[in-house]
Amino acid sequence: MIRSKVEELQAIFGEKNVLTEIEDMVAYSYDASHVEIQPEAVVFATATEQVSKLMQFAYREKIPVTPRGQGSGLSGGSVPLKKGIVLCMDKMNRLIDFDPANRLITVEAGMTTADIDPIAAKANLFYPPDPGSVAFSTIGGNVAENAGGLRGLKYGVTKDYVKMMKVVLPQGDIVTMGNKCVKHVAGFNMEGIFVGSEGLLGIMTEVTLALLPVPEHRESALAIFNSLDGAARAVSAIIAAGVTPSTMEFMDNVTINSIQNFKDCGLPRDGAAVLLIETDGEKNSAIAEMAKVEVEVKKNDIREFARAKSTEERNRLFEGRRVALNALASVRPNLILEDATVMRSKLPDMVRGISQIAAKYGLQIGIFGHAGDGNLHPTILLDMQDKDEKARAEKGVAELFQLAIDLEGTISGEHGIGLEKKPFLQNQIGAEGIRMLQNIKKTFDPLNLLNPGKMFDMPEQQSA
Amino acid sequence: MIRSKVEELQAIFGEKNVLTEIEDMVAYSYDASHVEIQPEAVVFATATEQVSKLMQFAYREKIPVTPRGQGSGLSGGSVPLKKGIVLCMDKMNRLIDFDPANRLITVEAGMTTADIDPIAAKANLFYPPDPGSVAFSTIGGNVAENAGGLRGLKYGVTKDYVKMMKVVLPQGDIVTMGNKCVKHVAGFNMEGIFVGSEGLLGIMTEVTLALLPVPEHRESALAIFNSLDGAARAVSAIIAAGVTPSTMEFMDNVTINSIQNFKDCGLPRDGAAVLLIETDGEKNSAIAEMAKVEVEVKKNDIREFARAKSTEERNRLFEGRRVALNALASVRPNLILEDATVMRSKLPDMVRGISQIAAKYGLQIGIFGHAGDGNLHPTILLDMQDKDEKARAEKGVAELFQLAIDLEGTISGEHGIGLEKKPFLQNQIGAEGIRMLQNIKKTFDPLNLLNPGKMFDMPEQQSA
Repeated sequence: MIRSKVEELQAIFGEKNVLTEIEDMVAYSYDASHVEIQPEAVVFATATEQVSKLMQFAYREKIPVTPRGQGSGLSGGSVPLKKGIVLCMDKMNRLIDFDPANRLITVEAGMTTADIDPIAAKANLFYPPDPGSVAFSTIGGNVAENAGGLRGLKYGVTKDYVKMMKVVLPQGDIVTMGNKCVKHVAGFNMEGIFVGSEGLLGIMTEVTLALLPVPEHRESALAIFNSLDGAARAVSAIIAAGVTPSTMEFMDNVTINSIQNFKDCGLPRDGAAVLLIETDGEKNSAIAEMAKVEVEVKKNDIREFARAKSTEERNRLFEGRRVALNALASVRPNLILEDATVMRSKLPDMVRGISQIAAKYGLQIGIFGHAGDGNLHPTILLDMQDKDEKARAEKGVAELFQLAIDLEGTISGEHGIGLEKKPFLQNQIGAEGIRMLQNIKKTFDPLNLLNPGKMFDMPEQQSA
Repeated sequence: MIRSKVEELQAIFGEKNVLTEIEDMVAYSYDASHVEIQPEAVVFATATEQVSKLMQFAYREKIPVTPRGQGSGLSGGSVPLKKGIVLCMDKMNRLIDFDPANRLITVEAGMTTADIDPIAAKANLFYPPDPGSVAFSTIGGNVAENAGGLRGLKYGVTKDYVKMMKVVLPQGDIVTMGNKCVKHVAGFNMEGIFVGSEGLLGIMTEVTLALLPVPEHRESALAIFNSLDGAARAVSAIIAAGVTPSTMEFMDNVTINSIQNFKDCGLPRDGAAVLLIETDGEKNSAIAEMAKVEVEVKKNDIREFARAKSTEERNRLFEGRRVALNALASVRPNLILEDATVMRSKLPDMVRGISQIAAKYGLQIGIFGHAGDGNLHPTILLDMQDKDEKARAEKGVAELFQLAIDLEGTISGEHGIGLEKKPFLQNQIGAEGIRMLQNIKKTFDPLNLLNPGKMFDMPEQQSA
């Protein structure tokens, strides 16, 4: 980037908050997906006004800007596809206001999501969405991707907790969207469309989130099944019994064995699948719900149902789930972690279809994930250096997405489209759907400078 | 409307589904607000394709179209401000699909909201949002206005239950938004912005809604307070105790006396305020929560706390609340029902401010509403024929809105902007906020033909 532009960035952010050395660019060229592109400059915002000035500058100079939290995204959302400037939000990580009387917290976008709970806990409250990255991802990134997590079935996802946000629009205007009230219908639901917009429509600098009371009690259990089908039927039976577990995590035999190879967590190597189940709420209620769970799982080809009698036992049960991704990652040099999602009732079809894809392309696929909400993570274990295997994996992934669409599901439950799934979005939402998104993008960002090239291409780009 | 155009409408909808007689127009000229404008034609849709053809016709002929459910809206949303065609959706009232395994129901937009529950009940499920109009308003209207209701605090509002919708865009394209999965992040959250868009962006013809299991048990109680402040403090104390009642309805002394004059519901004429409280869930849980409620209310200037011991007792307690609006309506020839809303913690300030406005302008104002979520209904009792009183009421309403805004609240919690609150929206969301809405409207409806003149004016109209 030429000297005069760098100086202008330094004037906005301060010298120490602007990086341009090539070795610094490398660290901001990737996220947790498989794409790597280096920006021309990296800036660190500490105030909303700086972000506004940056966008005015970017619009004047026609320089692309890509916002970034902690770079833990799984779809390439924070990779600077068109180079330009990476805007790091992680220094904007302050608490603005904690309001227990209204069960609300207002924080800057760069706060780590897990840092919300210790504050909320002072009033016995908590923030429910818990994506796998919760310990290091920023709340701004969570909002941009509409992050999910283990508790989606009972507690919903990020969009269900976003009440209000301060946003810098692509041309630098600072606007507030939403309201702190439980009910608010004055104007369109702008905060609704900004959640999950993957940084394409504006840059969120502050957000007000709803909190819930910490459940009084939690019951935890591990169910081991003799067949995949038994596990899938158990999930449906639990829901049909009117129970809404706070967690219902699924792991298949490939995942179980990867875990046991990685660390002995006491999982049965010959078990076809396990479900890790938690109910929570008022103590009697959580216990009663788990009793119903036990009745239902025992009807469905179960080998063993083990209830945790203590926090230590609970933590041991969950240890396998916690190390699952690391365990799968240790099997082969690389992995492709997917989040194609279906309705609960389609889980047996989905699991069967994934097995067929694995067989057809000679792929090793482990499946774990959030069975209660149909959000599985089929994970392809491979060596990306093996060109043939990589090509087979790519074919398998494409087929996996089509399978999800054919089952009325979605190509992304919680990771977003970004770059990784861009080629597949039209299959999901159709040409009219894409046009609608393009039109909205153009309304907010007519020069296509904010996180350009993500989710979909703009018409000009397509013809270029 | 000229003959050839009427014939074209008849070709689309069939002869019996097109009205043009002047006496028919009257019935479609108003809703439950205070504005009345007659359309030139009324059409009844029975299929999505007809709605698509209508919008193609409207765009070709540049005729405004105003969609309408049952006309029970409180903000003028379905009044045909620019005349043209009123599109009635209430004949599209079929069940498309009931899917208990995934706790989903798909219905046409014209189904009465209350008709959902008997279907859902077959699998022990229910649809939580319960606006006062639930027995006659359509689900399409509820979605267009993002309707609230009594259970907002615990169960949220309409937008929290809309999963997927079929929409006819202003120029006739038929698109599907959203997905049936619990988690879905492929593309912008379009269904999120369509909920509450008041029929400005498109016409919803089908909607898929999430359902919840019917709570096993319900506990009900009436708390009578010696002071308004005691009632307001009790609300905060209950929330601070970690309890989330399913209902926490407030009625002030004006409302209590109006009810007692209307029908003896056993409410104390000299009570300053009452709270009607319900907890629900697993039986032990609901009982434990109500026990906590009792502890908290008894600390706060309470005169009496009566728990319902049977369904009959419960219904008697709730009878006063059910007749409240009718009772208030019988006091004077007219009423203005407002929904300015604040955060729970600001309820004492809001109630005090309303009293000051009442005194300042010599107005009789009854207050009832959903205290748990801060959504009160200050209701001005007046004679609209009395020009002086009407003028004072209008000043009072304007001040009430400003009071809500000053308290970080909203000019509309659940009724929408429509025509009634259009002049006040800019005070709420600012000039930039209005510009953002105008830009989105223009993207979808460049000729401003779909429900024109609602919520905000378009720039051309302002200069006209």
